[in-house]
Amino acid sequence: MHKQSFFILFFIFSFMLSAQHEKQFSLEELIPGGKQYANFNPRIPVQFQWYGNRLATIGNDSVWLIDNPGRSQRKKIILTFKELEEGLEQSENKIHGLTFSPEGSSVLRFHTSRGSGLFDLENKEHRAFFSYPEKSKNHMLSPDHSYMAYTIENNLFIADKNGKEWAVSNECNRGIIYGQSVHRKEFGITGGIFWSPCGKKMAFYRMDETMVSDYPLVDASARVAEVKNSKYPMAGMTSHRVTIGIFDTETKETTWLKTGEPDDHYLTNIAWSPDGKALYLAELNRGQNRMKLNRYVTATGDLDKTLFEESHLKYVEPENPVLFVKKEDERFIWQSKRNGYNHLYLYDTSGKQLKQLTDGTWEVTGVIGFDEKGENLYFIATLPSPIDRHICSVTLRSGKITQHTTLPGMHSAALSASGRYLTDRYSSHDNPGRIDLIETRTGKTTLLSQAKNPFRGFSMPTVEMGTVKAADGTSDLYYRLVKPAGFDASKKYPVAVYVYGGPHSQMVSNRWRYGSGGWETHMAQNGYIVFVMDNRGTAYRGLEFENVTHRQLGVVEAEDQMKGVAFLQSLPYVDSERMGIHGWSYGGFMTINMLLRYPGVFKVGVAGGPVTDWKYYEVMYGERYMDTPAENPEGYEESSLLNKADRLQSRLLIIHGDEDPTVVMQNSIQFMKASIKAERHPDFFIYPGHGHNMLGRDRVHLHHHITRYFEDFIPQD
Amino acid sequence: MHKQSFFILFFIFSFMLSAQHEKQFSLEELIPGGKQYANFNPRIPVQFQWYGNRLATIGNDSVWLIDNPGRSQRKKIILTFKELEEGLEQSENKIHGLTFSPEGSSVLRFHTSRGSGLFDLENKEHRAFFSYPEKSKNHMLSPDHSYMAYTIENNLFIADKNGKEWAVSNECNRGIIYGQSVHRKEFGITGGIFWSPCGKKMAFYRMDETMVSDYPLVDASARVAEVKNSKYPMAGMTSHRVTIGIFDTETKETTWLKTGEPDDHYLTNIAWSPDGKALYLAELNRGQNRMKLNRYVTATGDLDKTLFEESHLKYVEPENPVLFVKKEDERFIWQSKRNGYNHLYLYDTSGKQLKQLTDGTWEVTGVIGFDEKGENLYFIATLPSPIDRHICSVTLRSGKITQHTTLPGMHSAALSASGRYLTDRYSSHDNPGRIDLIETRTGKTTLLSQAKNPFRGFSMPTVEMGTVKAADGTSDLYYRLVKPAGFDASKKYPVAVYVYGGPHSQMVSNRWRYGSGGWETHMAQNGYIVFVMDNRGTAYRGLEFENVTHRQLGVVEAEDQMKGVAFLQSLPYVDSERMGIHGWSYGGFMTINMLLRYPGVFKVGVAGGPVTDWKYYEVMYGERYMDTPAENPEGYEESSLLNKADRLQSRLLIIHGDEDPTVVMQNSIQFMKASIKAERHPDFFIYPGHGHNMLGRDRVHLHHHITRYFEDFIPQD
Repeated sequence: MHKQSFFILFFIFSFMLSAQHEKQFSLEELIPGGKQYANFNPRIPVQFQWYGNRLATIGNDSVWLIDNPGRSQRKKIILTFKELEEGLEQSENKIHGLTFSPEGSSVLRFHTSRGSGLFDLENKEHRAFFSYPEKSKNHMLSPDHSYMAYTIENNLFIADKNGKEWAVSNECNRGIIYGQSVHRKEFGITGGIFWSPCGKKMAFYRMDETMVSDYPLVDASARVAEVKNSKYPMAGMTSHRVTIGIFDTETKETTWLKTGEPDDHYLTNIAWSPDGKALYLAELNRGQNRMKLNRYVTATGDLDKTLFEESHLKYVEPENPVLFVKKEDERFIWQSKRNGYNHLYLYDTSGKQLKQLTDGTWEVTGVIGFDEKGENLYFIATLPSPIDRHICSVTLRSGKITQHTTLPGMHSAALSASGRYLTDRYSSHDNPGRIDLIETRTGKTTLLSQAKNPFRGFSMPTVEMGTVKAADGTSDLYYRLVKPAGFDASKKYPVAVYVYGGPHSQMVSNRWRYGSGGWETHMAQNGYIVFVMDNRGTAYRGLEFENVTHRQLGVVEAEDQMKGVAFLQSLPYVDSERMGIHGWSYGGFMTINMLLRYPGVFKVGVAGGPVTDWKYYEVMYGERYMDTPAENPEGYEESSLLNKADRLQSRLLIIHGDEDPTVVMQNSIQFMKASIKAERHPDFFIYPGHGHNMLGRDRVHLHHHITRYFEDFIPQD
Repeated sequence: MHKQSFFILFFIFSFMLSAQHEKQFSLEELIPGGKQYANFNPRIPVQFQWYGNRLATIGNDSVWLIDNPGRSQRKKIILTFKELEEGLEQSENKIHGLTFSPEGSSVLRFHTSRGSGLFDLENKEHRAFFSYPEKSKNHMLSPDHSYMAYTIENNLFIADKNGKEWAVSNECNRGIIYGQSVHRKEFGITGGIFWSPCGKKMAFYRMDETMVSDYPLVDASARVAEVKNSKYPMAGMTSHRVTIGIFDTETKETTWLKTGEPDDHYLTNIAWSPDGKALYLAELNRGQNRMKLNRYVTATGDLDKTLFEESHLKYVEPENPVLFVKKEDERFIWQSKRNGYNHLYLYDTSGKQLKQLTDGTWEVTGVIGFDEKGENLYFIATLPSPIDRHICSVTLRSGKITQHTTLPGMHSAALSASGRYLTDRYSSHDNPGRIDLIETRTGKTTLLSQAKNPFRGFSMPTVEMGTVKAADGTSDLYYRLVKPAGFDASKKYPVAVYVYGGPHSQMVSNRWRYGSGGWETHMAQNGYIVFVMDNRGTAYRGLEFENVTHRQLGVVEAEDQMKGVAFLQSLPYVDSERMGIHGWSYGGFMTINMLLRYPGVFKVGVAGGPVTDWKYYEVMYGERYMDTPAENPEGYEESSLLNKADRLQSRLLIIHGDEDPTVVMQNSIQFMKASIKAERHPDFFIYPGHGHNMLGRDRVHLHHHITRYFEDFIPQD
């Protein structure tokens, strides 16, 4: 090689090295809504659905099938979009989604912006197309494909495949709502229409909100700003009333369940009996400390039986309906935290507990389903540690538990009709995401699809995981620590703590980069160490770990976060004088909370959409954790940030979406007022027209704004 | 003197000098609402009222009289509060105000929180006490003291001294309002009840706002935030309808003036004829470019005569009702800018102009009144310069003008019943305020009361006044320049520009410290030079100086302010790289306007309660200066700040009272939205529960907040 070539190669090599080190990702690349975000967000290239025991995958213009995935991954085209679209009206022919029958029926369900269709894959012919009436929402096809239920504004309708329509409700009062989610989507509720297994009957929610106070959201983008009132029952105040109707598609009559008084109880976790004659409900008193599993006769609306009760001095929180054992009418699965961790129980329909199927200081986080014969139940568990999720199954008869996944990470699964195969979708701290096929009997694992590491070739901040002892001296709290690329332990780095800290959450887990998001990368690129830790009160760690915060939200959480701070301060490369904290929603509450409980620790805080006094939060979530203001005045006082505004020493930026229907802006406004009275000077920012989170393009702006605040007020090195 | 004494004295002297130099006034001392503000706000210790030709003055617990003020200032007690309170019910006996009869009647009017009373000073006995009914407001005694008119919510009532009550209106619809100000207090309107001279009849406004759009103000201090809708007609939109009723106290009947169509015209400047038979109105079309002076027959409501009209291609703005010459029924005074400056005209009741009483390139800014015989009319004029106000009179017969005050300053006056004496209240840049007695015939001047200079003994920022040529190359614009104490011309100082710049305003005049306020002192103490200049578009400089901004608010004003900037940049001791700007309301508009039209000039802006697009401002003020958005789309486009948000380069803090009913918060919210879309990052702050201005304690907080923003983002020296 002569000299010139050497120098050219050297130059190219240096340039590549240099490029690798110097790439600074912009927020356009790191934040959802950013212009180049799609390029740097890991994506598993191929997605799969079970079609019986075959695997279907949807390409750009056609549908592929793997006939015998255990043997070969050879794909063949079974349908092109063109074929599917040909039988449709021009206006309806843009396909948005395809759903295969997991049981293997040849009827493919699809939807367009105009309606839902049924297509027979074997005969390649359209079976039916249910057009969406104007303004209709919440479309739900019956299991037998005879009807589509839907809502228009506050009313509920069904239509058949010829477009013939029946009004299930005919309510003029907009404060009374049929067929939609109730109880502010707490208790696992996601919708208000529940078809019976055979499709002859339909259960639905009716919610009367007329007695609930209106919270005024102001739309300033109108020519003259307009109020959009939102029914928002605040802690301790009058709540809505929910009932359940059973609509009979043959008689077109509705029977109402006789759920009785007091009528501000919670009717949750609706499940049909397999024969369609009974409806199971988890009914909870408003105080949320006593649950009854009730069964109603759908023909009459009468209460048939209370199968069992669960109660707790703090709260009970049912989030999963009864699940009947496959092909059985007499036994079902119930999930409960009654022994301290969420586990599976086998019951018979007399209400007798037959067996506790799972046990231990770990939790079942989801149920996947039964195999074909109903012998084995597949589920997801926090095994072997709270930051992993593995796919397991339990044999009902023997109680034997099998773990089907071995590689550490956060696994989720779908089961083939027979139960012979699982698709295992997962990521881990060093794997951006993949899908494997697992043969359940043998454990044989085959790679189906692997996401690329979008940061490959770039010098990135590193993410480490570890634990810190909680303020109780025993619990391990998981954290992740993001260090700038080219980290030098002899230097002193400023710190950005990101916090959430509320129930139902887990920030740190063994997913891609331990869950570290784009803003953390951005801050690390700006020279910050980023720290995120799950305090007590968060999820998947058992009941006591969570409910220790009961009636005093923010106290224990803050004590634990201070253990994280102490850990940071113990690190020689952390500059304790240059620490900031940021969080959103519960994390906004925690951010201000930390500044006020431990003044002087953080130079800067940025609190988004914060609760500042739990009396402004809603009944369902709020009263579960805090009881009512009348029942727990000391707790509300202790948790409130309004009465502690005078302790503010740091720079604090509060950000709120001015149409936030979840944590209403009253929280921030009243904190501003309290701060002004206390002669303190928080800063404020609003995102006009946004709700509880800034989505779309403005999410990039938000993270620029948050970052700028850190840079403005964290002293420069 | 032996040595030790010398040293002690030297020490004390040094200490005093040092104290004099080092006193830093806090905002608590400099801003209204501050805890020590009263100590440092100049106050004339004694106030006077004319009681015929005698001077009355009110002490802490008694009322004093000077019998012959021209001869001697000897005061005697004529009434103690105790005497006055003795005849009252216990609950009503806290006296809040006393009003002497300027004509010299012995009946003293007073009011308490519970009612208005009449007390005969000669017989020392109570004549009447009109109790205020619950929730009543806008109390107006009839001139003959027979009735008190008042409003309760939207209705109008009268009561006699026995408490017998008559409803003048009985309207259930809250959108229809009787007896209150209309037309958003433009056109000089301050109330809605107008007693006839003899008190037998009462004219009143009726305003129908039902067709006006509601602007939602949200009160976040309620348990659940509540909407308080405010009827706010925005430029170009449907406006309210005003009519005028004449209530006859004898028949208790109302006659409505037949003011006709179109009914969104403006009925302004109500004046009774001396005999009570006719009512004079200045009626203005909605376009505000044509005014008719109309006279109505009060007995029938018929239009009697249009006496004359005034029109202008831009706008006409009547602000002063006709004023009848004293003791005459046939001649009256009319104020008009028709020849380019506000002057006085003498008319007869046929509508014939008899004489132009004043003329010249100066303005009459107020009328004081006639002497006893009605021969001379006293007024205030911008003589000899726009920044001074002097007391003048004109002899109606000869047209001779006499100037009664000579010392430069801002003079205002009250005339004794005979016209022999004036009390002259004034301040000037080096005089914190005094009251003199002037004998009108001789000009003999006697000091009555002198305010102390509250800053005496302290080393204070100096205030200078000067002029800069406007962007038109000819107009002189007055400015004041505040320099830090111990100013050193060899140093470089940062600058804070304070701006208002809108119609009806004059920031710079020859009042105490040229009108420089507490925040300017504070900023000068922090090392800033403060600059304030009245651009074209502001008041008291003639019609053209003001209306050059017509249909394009913000353009000429900004060009002129840039002349001020150029002047500042020419000063060797100004650091052009460290300039900030602050203003409120129109000045908030101007602040953002300057940042967007001339990016890079100011490092920092703080805009309070800004208009950001004139389409969000109200009909009366907005359409006068801008016409409607449909009539002047280019002008609205040019004036709007929303479409220029992408030009923002500076740090900009926007502050708004979240219940501002004047400049609605929609202005700031929409500018935030436009900025976010343009990827710009203004900062924001709200004062919960406040209206257009922060009053009370929070005004101190506000000025801390504004100052901090300057200190955060103006680079330190």
